[in-house]
Amino acid sequence: MDAIDEAILAVRPAARQLGRTGDGLRRDLLLTLADRLLEAGDRILAANAEDLAAAQGLAPALVHRLGLDRAKLEELAKGVRTVAALKDPLGQVRVRRLLDDGLLLTRRTVPLGVLAVVFEARPDAVVQIGALALRSGNGLILKGGAEAARSTAILAGLLRATLAELGQDPAALVNLPDRTALDRLLALEHGADLIVARGSKAMVQSLQARSRVPVMGHAEGICHIYLDRSADPAMALHIVADAKLGHPAACNAVETLLVHREAAPLLPGLVAALPQIAWRGCPLAVAHTPGLPMAEATEQDWDTEYGAPVLSVKVVPDLDAALAHIARHGSGHTEAIVGADPAAAARFLEEVDAAGVYHNASTRFADGYRYGFGAEVGISTGRLHARGPVGLDGLVTTKDTLEGSGQSAADYGPQGRAFLHRDL
Amino acid sequence: MDAIDEAILAVRPAARQLGRTGDGLRRDLLLTLADRLLEAGDRILAANAEDLAAAQGLAPALVHRLGLDRAKLEELAKGVRTVAALKDPLGQVRVRRLLDDGLLLTRRTVPLGVLAVVFEARPDAVVQIGALALRSGNGLILKGGAEAARSTAILAGLLRATLAELGQDPAALVNLPDRTALDRLLALEHGADLIVARGSKAMVQSLQARSRVPVMGHAEGICHIYLDRSADPAMALHIVADAKLGHPAACNAVETLLVHREAAPLLPGLVAALPQIAWRGCPLAVAHTPGLPMAEATEQDWDTEYGAPVLSVKVVPDLDAALAHIARHGSGHTEAIVGADPAAAARFLEEVDAAGVYHNASTRFADGYRYGFGAEVGISTGRLHARGPVGLDGLVTTKDTLEGSGQSAADYGPQGRAFLHRDL
Repeated sequence: MDAIDEAILAVRPAARQLGRTGDGLRRDLLLTLADRLLEAGDRILAANAEDLAAAQGLAPALVHRLGLDRAKLEELAKGVRTVAALKDPLGQVRVRRLLDDGLLLTRRTVPLGVLAVVFEARPDAVVQIGALALRSGNGLILKGGAEAARSTAILAGLLRATLAELGQDPAALVNLPDRTALDRLLALEHGADLIVARGSKAMVQSLQARSRVPVMGHAEGICHIYLDRSADPAMALHIVADAKLGHPAACNAVETLLVHREAAPLLPGLVAALPQIAWRGCPLAVAHTPGLPMAEATEQDWDTEYGAPVLSVKVVPDLDAALAHIARHGSGHTEAIVGADPAAAARFLEEVDAAGVYHNASTRFADGYRYGFGAEVGISTGRLHARGPVGLDGLVTTKDTLEGSGQSAADYGPQGRAFLHRDL
Repeated sequence: MDAIDEAILAVRPAARQLGRTGDGLRRDLLLTLADRLLEAGDRILAANAEDLAAAQGLAPALVHRLGLDRAKLEELAKGVRTVAALKDPLGQVRVRRLLDDGLLLTRRTVPLGVLAVVFEARPDAVVQIGALALRSGNGLILKGGAEAARSTAILAGLLRATLAELGQDPAALVNLPDRTALDRLLALEHGADLIVARGSKAMVQSLQARSRVPVMGHAEGICHIYLDRSADPAMALHIVADAKLGHPAACNAVETLLVHREAAPLLPGLVAALPQIAWRGCPLAVAHTPGLPMAEATEQDWDTEYGAPVLSVKVVPDLDAALAHIARHGSGHTEAIVGADPAAAARFLEEVDAAGVYHNASTRFADGYRYGFGAEVGISTGRLHARGPVGLDGLVTTKDTLEGSGQSAADYGPQGRAFLHRDL
């Protein structure tokens, strides 16, 4: 076993100690981390500048994600303090039930164990996920992209130093230096309990193929906005502009606008007001926007996550058709209806099957910070364990304790005692 | 697409309708099912008798699991009524938070979607899992072993008839006729959301290897009982007898007894009182039981789930050694301490990392019925989604709705409005 294996396997016992500490200590860890993050600002930005200098020539979007500045650090510190202030995710009682007198069942939340996070350019993931992992008493294994190596190393070092400062074993957090180390993690049977992949779809799929433990991928997002015939034009413009242009590469950006045919007269105004968008419409959408830049959409457009300021538009005969389109083409991420009609909104909220279903709000709200989770591990479009933005709740599991006074199972049954099953 | 594909793909839309029904209807479904189960008793037992007749020559344990009788049917009906009486698992509000005035986030439980259950001989799984699936508004795809074909068919037909009787689409439940149909399910991308495998380890592993969706295997159980030096001899005997002999093939049966060296004098009494057990001991255990049937254990014994009335025994110097043995050899299922010392019990309950950790109670209590869940889908030793006996709580996911009044995400931030994040 080499040094990397040893470091990986040392995370779990160290994390167990952390998981047994009280709410106060884990809160203090985060408050201290927020302070140290700002105090070390110059050093962090200097390391980040080196990463940025080395990254010239890489894709501009990647370079953009890589960059930190003073405002971002302050935002990160604020997020860490928000996570510190959240209710302790550990020791929450889910079941407390007397199976019989003197036989007490308690189901409580405990840390998931060891979390591994694999990310590409974004060094802020270190702080966000680090805060969530430590607050919930989990160990953390980090593997950042080579382009973020210096930023990641300094931030991971800060997390480890904060652990040590508060008397905790810094071995609970490991920063893997390279791909070989990641391969070692993937090969170990008890390395991590969950791998969070924040990066391209190809990266997520590669990890899923190689990992023995579940991989939570930062989700694919084919999000829709449906403009009902009762939609207010100004509200439609405000929401569509935000959902498409706020951050086109984000998974919560909108990709397709579905427009009730009676709302189609809103299209020329929208297209004219948002020339930054490359529009692609169905034949009816094209017909409603004469003289305006509306390319013809193909069938493939309805299944495409552009990650860019491109928006496809489909005019639909009614709400049913919109629901059917979403059921067929949506990725189960976030879907929104804009309209004043409460009956249409109620049906949409009820019938659309997605992690998030919105009425009169931008799809861009699908985010752990905005939901008040302080930060997020990622957004899950899966249905198991966690769905939607994943915060502290997604980093715990449960443990049942049963405190008896000598009972055997055979004491109960048709010929024996009956269970009480009384919730306390 | 053939008829099987169509039947499988019809489950989801039918289940969606079921998932939108109220608590009352889903409760009535189960109460009606319990009645019909008893009314159809003769037909069910006749079909089961045919299965049993055809199964002669198969392994006795399998034939035993296959058999139904009037008492078992009454127990099953009682379990169905218990599940009916449980609190509605759907529509439970997990988060209700004003992100801002006029911007309300609600996270509610919704059905998981479509559950598939693959089981070997046990036809009672049809009723138990059927009750849990319908109560939680999920669709259900069943695949029973060929040896249980007649029993499974009649029970699945009863479930479908009950759905139809209460005005629900019976397409929400499908009974797959053969392995080819199961292969079709595994090949479909949106067939099931979760596969529950109840059968041999080989069967579980084969499904896990072939499935695109998560497979929850009925867990491997290497459970320990630790007799502390403070253990009461009569209690130790009562609990060990139940945990080993109550149902040796069950995953919650004990496989290894760890004995504090000061409690080793209890061993002769235990061994003498339980001659049905084939004992295998460490050298110290053998030394403590002169003239009694105690074979020598090998290293492999500590990692073996016997599924039979065999029990390995290890004498340990102290509680720390017992904790270390469990950490190394336990399967994370259920672990118990027997002893009067509250400090030892507290450490054991705190430090053992398993789905269930017990004090002065038999490991056999690890079971959905006994926990008051009415029935169980299985017992999970995984840490994600569900851990321990899995009941209704394991068959739901969440959906977030956001009800706004025209907000865009860009309205908030350093230059805009601040989030309220006020829980209601």
